[in-house]
Amino acid sequence: MNKLLIVGTVAFDAIETPFGKTDKTLGGAATYIGLSAAYFNVNSAIVSVVGDDFPAEYLELFKSRNIDVSGIEIVQGEKTFFWSGKYRNDLNVRDTLETQLNVLADFSPKVSENFKDADVVMLGNLHPLVQKNVLDQLSRKPKLVVLDTMNYWMNHTPDELKEVLQRVDVITINDEEARQLSGEYSLVKAAEKIHEMGPKYVVIKKGENGALLFSGKKVFFAPALPLKEVFDPTGAGDTFAGGFTGYLTQSSNVSFRNMKNAVIYGSNLASFCVEKFGTERMECLKQEEVQERLQQFRMLTQFDIELAE
Amino acid sequence: MNKLLIVGTVAFDAIETPFGKTDKTLGGAATYIGLSAAYFNVNSAIVSVVGDDFPAEYLELFKSRNIDVSGIEIVQGEKTFFWSGKYRNDLNVRDTLETQLNVLADFSPKVSENFKDADVVMLGNLHPLVQKNVLDQLSRKPKLVVLDTMNYWMNHTPDELKEVLQRVDVITINDEEARQLSGEYSLVKAAEKIHEMGPKYVVIKKGENGALLFSGKKVFFAPALPLKEVFDPTGAGDTFAGGFTGYLTQSSNVSFRNMKNAVIYGSNLASFCVEKFGTERMECLKQEEVQERLQQFRMLTQFDIELAE
Repeated sequence: MNKLLIVGTVAFDAIETPFGKTDKTLGGAATYIGLSAAYFNVNSAIVSVVGDDFPAEYLELFKSRNIDVSGIEIVQGEKTFFWSGKYRNDLNVRDTLETQLNVLADFSPKVSENFKDADVVMLGNLHPLVQKNVLDQLSRKPKLVVLDTMNYWMNHTPDELKEVLQRVDVITINDEEARQLSGEYSLVKAAEKIHEMGPKYVVIKKGENGALLFSGKKVFFAPALPLKEVFDPTGAGDTFAGGFTGYLTQSSNVSFRNMKNAVIYGSNLASFCVEKFGTERMECLKQEEVQERLQQFRMLTQFDIELAE
Repeated sequence: MNKLLIVGTVAFDAIETPFGKTDKTLGGAATYIGLSAAYFNVNSAIVSVVGDDFPAEYLELFKSRNIDVSGIEIVQGEKTFFWSGKYRNDLNVRDTLETQLNVLADFSPKVSENFKDADVVMLGNLHPLVQKNVLDQLSRKPKLVVLDTMNYWMNHTPDELKEVLQRVDVITINDEEARQLSGEYSLVKAAEKIHEMGPKYVVIKKGENGALLFSGKKVFFAPALPLKEVFDPTGAGDTFAGGFTGYLTQSSNVSFRNMKNAVIYGSNLASFCVEKFGTERMECLKQEEVQERLQQFRMLTQFDIELAE
């Protein structure tokens, strides 16, 4: 089995949506990426940091999904990263209520020996120097390096971000971030500018409006599955990234054509994530459900027009 | 050739976008619908009303596209409907600067004999009683009746709108209008509620975020083509409706499967409309360009995952 190395936060979240609220629950980018990628036949590992308040059962959950947790450092006497947020009525805007960096403030990632030769590396949203630090520890060039980031790093560490971007094959960001990073309103032009910064592939996530994959002149689009109910969008972007990288790690084929499939799988898995609070839906997801939904994506997007009418 | 009857405004528009502005130019829903539908092999007719200030050359333009103009009433001594609007920087919001109803205030549509047995009827955005009046004049039930409307009629003439909706097969509205009409935020639920009002098919237009087609449990999605430059979104929705109805009139097949193709053609033609000001791009559009763009839509959306991996 191929190896997927995931770097990102493992955290406590407290979430409030118009449909209810959670107490402190399992969250963090690496958590969602890992649970999503676990749908595929891959050896994955999470590199992260938590405090001694982090429940052993959560680590067991990862292990039960064939996720190596030896790279999750547990800092004694410190607390796990905590985020709480509240979504507005239409679920498209969320306000951060509280952020406690805790152990994340001094996070120095340590990649375990067994994953220094990972096939695919997924750099979750973190300080660009932490992302770079992970790449520096690798023993060989991975087949694919995927990076997620956000506007915070564009504002506060633009030079460090640009440096790490030069070493990245795929960037996944949302539409507003793509506009900010490139200074272009048109997403086509934004992707062109971002290509020039390093990433050969640019994935622009538009939430309920789907995701675009750009590479040179090529472009592919995957819609979000129209759902009757969306309970909690938390983790949808990371679940997308987990499906995207999990599929590419399993299939070991990083052609544009296969990357289309990865975008569909990312959208597929993300469509489950939002159906319940936090990681709840991803924890009970079955293979057959994903395959059935793949068929729904096919019905949703595939058409059959003869070219010459 | 099958017959397409189009009812809607034929107007003067004055448009301002971040990229420039036009003087009084040809506009109106029926204009865009007609020019778009003219891409297909159909006999179409516009039912509308203009003043004696309406240039003969515009009528000639319609005739040159095989559009019957005998249903465009010319009221002597009166002026043509005029609208002017200004788009904000991101082109997603526009402010109406001026509306002069003029001849439209007393519009009483007259369907010419030759189109009372139309195969497809496209009711452009107008007072629901005008839309109903057109249906009352038909000599037989059309194969398909498509209706466009807007929030104004939902606010001011909800009962009249609901009455005409009972006689309609397809409604095309934007996402905000679908939410208002149904009282549901989820577009899946909104489509369900709107089905119950009459239309078997619900097309929800999301502008640069594509269009959804709902029928019962079935759903199809067509993205908007990602463009480097969008100059002027005016008429994009009507151009979509023209492509949608033009294709269905030509192919004379109103199955869900063929309606998917119609949504793709609608999106295809709309992607040209926004590339220049007003009707400019549609006036010079070539068959080959549409066929080439169909290929781009295919590349943009089609994927090929084996079901069992």
